[in-house]
Amino acid sequence: MNPITFTKQSYIIDGKPGFLYSGEFHYFRVRKSAWRERMELFKKAGGNCIATYIPWLIHEPTEGNITFAGEDHLDLEGFLKIAQETGLRVMARPGPYQYSELVYGGLPRWLYDGYPALHARRLNGESIQRGSVSYIHPLFLEKVKRWFDAVCPLIARYTISQGGPIAFTQFDNEAMGVHLWRGSADYNPETMGFGKSGGRYTRFMQKRFPCLTDLNTAYDSAYERYEDVRPQTPGLPPRTSDTRRKKDYFEFYLGTVAEYGVILVEMMRSHGIDTPFIHNSANPDMNAFFIETVDALGSDFLLGSDHYYNLDQNWNQNNPTPQYAINVFYSNEMLRLMGFPPSIFELPGGSCSDWPPITPHDIKACVLANIALGMKGCNYYIFTGGPNPPGAGLTTDLYDYGAAIGSEGEIRPLYDVVKEIGHFVKDNSWLVEAEHVSDFRVSLDFDYARARQYEAPLTGIRFSAEQAWKFTRVGLLTTAFCSSLSPDFIDMRSDEWLTDLSTPLVVICAETMAQSKQARIVQFLKNGGRALIAPVLPRFDENLHPCTILSDYLGSPELEANDGQQVRFNCGPVVNIFDNGGVSYTQAVPASGKVLGIDEFTNKTISWMSSPTGGGKVVFLGFHWMHAKNEQGQMLSWLLKELGLIQRVICSNPNIWTTLRRHADKSMLFAMNLSTSDMEAEIDCPKNDDTPGSKHHVALKAMTVLMMDPVSGKEI
Amino acid sequence: MNPITFTKQSYIIDGKPGFLYSGEFHYFRVRKSAWRERMELFKKAGGNCIATYIPWLIHEPTEGNITFAGEDHLDLEGFLKIAQETGLRVMARPGPYQYSELVYGGLPRWLYDGYPALHARRLNGESIQRGSVSYIHPLFLEKVKRWFDAVCPLIARYTISQGGPIAFTQFDNEAMGVHLWRGSADYNPETMGFGKSGGRYTRFMQKRFPCLTDLNTAYDSAYERYEDVRPQTPGLPPRTSDTRRKKDYFEFYLGTVAEYGVILVEMMRSHGIDTPFIHNSANPDMNAFFIETVDALGSDFLLGSDHYYNLDQNWNQNNPTPQYAINVFYSNEMLRLMGFPPSIFELPGGSCSDWPPITPHDIKACVLANIALGMKGCNYYIFTGGPNPPGAGLTTDLYDYGAAIGSEGEIRPLYDVVKEIGHFVKDNSWLVEAEHVSDFRVSLDFDYARARQYEAPLTGIRFSAEQAWKFTRVGLLTTAFCSSLSPDFIDMRSDEWLTDLSTPLVVICAETMAQSKQARIVQFLKNGGRALIAPVLPRFDENLHPCTILSDYLGSPELEANDGQQVRFNCGPVVNIFDNGGVSYTQAVPASGKVLGIDEFTNKTISWMSSPTGGGKVVFLGFHWMHAKNEQGQMLSWLLKELGLIQRVICSNPNIWTTLRRHADKSMLFAMNLSTSDMEAEIDCPKNDDTPGSKHHVALKAMTVLMMDPVSGKEI
Repeated sequence: MNPITFTKQSYIIDGKPGFLYSGEFHYFRVRKSAWRERMELFKKAGGNCIATYIPWLIHEPTEGNITFAGEDHLDLEGFLKIAQETGLRVMARPGPYQYSELVYGGLPRWLYDGYPALHARRLNGESIQRGSVSYIHPLFLEKVKRWFDAVCPLIARYTISQGGPIAFTQFDNEAMGVHLWRGSADYNPETMGFGKSGGRYTRFMQKRFPCLTDLNTAYDSAYERYEDVRPQTPGLPPRTSDTRRKKDYFEFYLGTVAEYGVILVEMMRSHGIDTPFIHNSANPDMNAFFIETVDALGSDFLLGSDHYYNLDQNWNQNNPTPQYAINVFYSNEMLRLMGFPPSIFELPGGSCSDWPPITPHDIKACVLANIALGMKGCNYYIFTGGPNPPGAGLTTDLYDYGAAIGSEGEIRPLYDVVKEIGHFVKDNSWLVEAEHVSDFRVSLDFDYARARQYEAPLTGIRFSAEQAWKFTRVGLLTTAFCSSLSPDFIDMRSDEWLTDLSTPLVVICAETMAQSKQARIVQFLKNGGRALIAPVLPRFDENLHPCTILSDYLGSPELEANDGQQVRFNCGPVVNIFDNGGVSYTQAVPASGKVLGIDEFTNKTISWMSSPTGGGKVVFLGFHWMHAKNEQGQMLSWLLKELGLIQRVICSNPNIWTTLRRHADKSMLFAMNLSTSDMEAEIDCPKNDDTPGSKHHVALKAMTVLMMDPVSGKEI
Repeated sequence: MNPITFTKQSYIIDGKPGFLYSGEFHYFRVRKSAWRERMELFKKAGGNCIATYIPWLIHEPTEGNITFAGEDHLDLEGFLKIAQETGLRVMARPGPYQYSELVYGGLPRWLYDGYPALHARRLNGESIQRGSVSYIHPLFLEKVKRWFDAVCPLIARYTISQGGPIAFTQFDNEAMGVHLWRGSADYNPETMGFGKSGGRYTRFMQKRFPCLTDLNTAYDSAYERYEDVRPQTPGLPPRTSDTRRKKDYFEFYLGTVAEYGVILVEMMRSHGIDTPFIHNSANPDMNAFFIETVDALGSDFLLGSDHYYNLDQNWNQNNPTPQYAINVFYSNEMLRLMGFPPSIFELPGGSCSDWPPITPHDIKACVLANIALGMKGCNYYIFTGGPNPPGAGLTTDLYDYGAAIGSEGEIRPLYDVVKEIGHFVKDNSWLVEAEHVSDFRVSLDFDYARARQYEAPLTGIRFSAEQAWKFTRVGLLTTAFCSSLSPDFIDMRSDEWLTDLSTPLVVICAETMAQSKQARIVQFLKNGGRALIAPVLPRFDENLHPCTILSDYLGSPELEANDGQQVRFNCGPVVNIFDNGGVSYTQAVPASGKVLGIDEFTNKTISWMSSPTGGGKVVFLGFHWMHAKNEQGQMLSWLLKELGLIQRVICSNPNIWTTLRRHADKSMLFAMNLSTSDMEAEIDCPKNDDTPGSKHHVALKAMTVLMMDPVSGKEI
């Protein structure tokens, strides 16, 4: 069997670019006699891989007694053999932590209950929750090592290089979720090394602030020794220094997670596991927390994300919605920018809850929307289930999950959807190499996507990093999709985009932005780039120290908040644009500037354009919004056209969202109707020279995605 | 023209029971020449009433200059004449506050900006938000009186008794929303009378605590004079006394709102307005805040509610969902129990936002679901719109709203829906007298529905009033609808249900419940009633003083929290019930008791049944949940059947929710599919003697409601 490899853009399966099509299949929940038949069913559906957790909990029921023999649910090796015979590759997920609705998240009961020292802890010392461990606590790592010493050799014997089926090995699962979802990072004092001269946190502080005076200035503190520094002050009204301190701690915490990943991967490698290693961010919102991990692990590592839309009534939506599509979009884009083919390691294949219902119809729309938005590989969670091992299930006895294949082997209507999509990605395997045909770019500042973890609302900060990230999603991106604009993200940490002048760039700024990122925007403009900058200009760097490189380059235009007064915002030909966010007036437009938008009530400038020294073109827009009105889209389109936008798809219905994907001479247009009503539209894909293409009429039932040839209009 | 009157159950229109079918139509937003044509269109659609705000803002642009003459948008009288000629009744809504996306909520600019004394204020003295006034501030009432002195005589001349079209007059609009939505009740010191010996708050305190020592005991304070009492203590960790004090203040605040209503109605009556008066609670969540107002206004007053499902991205859902249906259910039930035919004075007829889309398909499902769940009258907000008067619009120039009739008179597809439903309610006017055929009852404790406004999480309170109200909605009611059980609410404040032994009663208890309510449950049981009591027994009254009447009557069974330990809950024949809420063990089941449900891990009792002295039958269930698994429904059904439940509708699909409505020999079954997928089911309405009826197969497209004859199965 050929290994599955991957490039930045795609998977390589059996030597050819192809879609990773995997399904979760737990040997410990399906009786042995059903393994082969169900695997064959998945293969028939187009599957080329299955994934399984390997729960420490069930294999080491009492400390020191590790077994893979005996009952069906322990026979990992038997399972791997049958997968091998069926021709399916395997993603092995040996933990240590797994969740999978197992008690203690799949960790042994004796471990968590017997060794409280290794619990993840809140700042006040309380354990965060059952199953929540302190990742790099020495005692925890010692126990993990014993588990890995047993399970890894078994995995190693069945890797593809050894003639086995295992193509990927995952370490841990949805890291950080067990801490952060309960409202706290890990503050286990031993792990984090508080108060010790050689402690981890102490060393981190020394590295971040080589001079103690700088630390005290930043933290508004009076420490005399690094080991006295604490991650939070019990200060009452939030101060700038508190945000700095929390931010540093959060980054320190992310560093420990990265180290945890490195330690686990090294353990696994030491046992001869030579597959690529993978990990799954628990949801789009957490992708940005893995930058340190990705940097630490380098190549042979692949980060994916989990894209559920509903697992119970606590979720934001019962079914895929346009808001879900926005999350999918930015998640896939983040993964792409981190250098990976966007992979969704848990894509809904049912739910532990019977209600709200997860239907085949909704799942089909969900999966196709993920493909439309750039997904190159997926794993259905789950493809088939069955009874939990005795005492191991956190929910109910039966882990049926409403999956494609029921616990008794029933072939459900969902199977047809899995099969239909499986054949679609096989028949259109070129899609895995395809790129999104975009007509403008949007800056992605990972700092903004993290800020909610540490940023306090500060006096003097009018537009925070967290607000910038929210505006990106509910304002800019939503407006863009409703206006059939086609955005891509660029990574503000990278220099790659600086010389790409092909399309205009929208730069979303908070009042804080790293100096290097501000400098990159300046450089992009100096290179001749065209940028729409909104809704404020940074006045500080990411650590809240004054930094106005970007503003200085633009001529230091002074901005003035309108402080909630009603405005009447007109921009170019678009009048009376609904302000449901906020407006900043530019007091003096730069000398070379031209006013584009004003507040009719005060006649003050909200938007202007200029050509700063050295080339390039800038539109500044002192306005942020939540998408609600068509005029907001008209404004955005008009401003981008002032910057040379050539629209790639034109769709007459704001409720049908489109993406055009292209590779070599092949292209496919996806049209998504994620509303609850049937929708129709005229869709036009103009040619590259901006002359009109041929218009196609499309009709989409509620909650459906349509694929068509953009030239002929033929449905695929 | 006959007046529109109403009973507790229905509207009487032209002397016959009929549905109030109204549409919002603003004379100040539609040009005069279009009034008649659009009114006729609404009449053709089955409309019998239109509603309009009468904005103080535009009629008194500068103080003292009140005018109803001149331009189209001021000609209220002309509008009323045409309504009269068209044969439509009118709901007049002269404010003072209105919102309607008008600046300052429709209050004059000069009023709010010129008289800061009358602003509603936070505890720290800040104004709450623009347009947020302190309702019974003397200066505000003085200005209101001048406005009412001008507008009320005009209204009075056009009431039905004077041969005019005005059938209802509304005071204010969505009262309290402008305060509470911004996170604060009103603490305007002059209005509330803090610190004065004759001040309102001082008098309220004296009345509530005739003995100052009791006050100090309750508030954990040491006041020497009533006038020194303050509505909140700046205490750090919440104490029992803080919750008491906040609760008292909230009730005091609700009392001022009631007084405001009385003052406004008296003003209007003094000018000869003799229509019934109405008011609209802003949403289901606020209905419970109007008890004082309803009590104060007595007959000739009708409280309705507003039932939007989406007005912008901040809403919980883009379209009607089952969760929305739960809100509609409890809202209509609250209105019914307050003594009104459930009336939705603002039902979506479009949206100020273009996105998320409000479609005819969704609105049809929304309105039919409201009818299915007991609505007897409605007003589309809006039926038709047009340009805002100059400078008056808070959103954009055009208030088109995507309404049934566009601002240029376009007849949109939504009009067909309005017409179709208009004809449906006309053809089935008996529905307005129909009652829900229920098979069990649920206790409604209005205290629980209010508790989120004052309740702090207190040590020693394991299950709070707010949790009880949440469990009622996401647990009990959702499970009931998914299990095709048919609930009705009973009002715990009333004695009416005490002798009705027809169906079992589910009593949801927090650890706090008023003494009188506990006593009523005891009385119900003594009368021979059958009750399922869950998930705890009250230990305190509503003011957190010890009170165990109910528990004592049941033999004082001691409850023990399981504190988050995993349980394996089996109840009767239903095993392994998913615990996603919490469990209380009963340490000693009452002597006469029989165990129904246990935790298999500990063998401790979770549910038991007993026949307390004096008759009746009790099932206690120490379990609360969020509906997620079918077993939760099987458990509920089984427990209710132990109490003699005879199910009125049996539906095989948990995603199709049913209600059966009956009047005399007529009945109609509503089947709702508020999911995004097509659904099918077998539905059976057993006969009264519990023998099976005839099964009907139904197929419902996504987001549709079907009406059928329960006997023949014929679609209506």
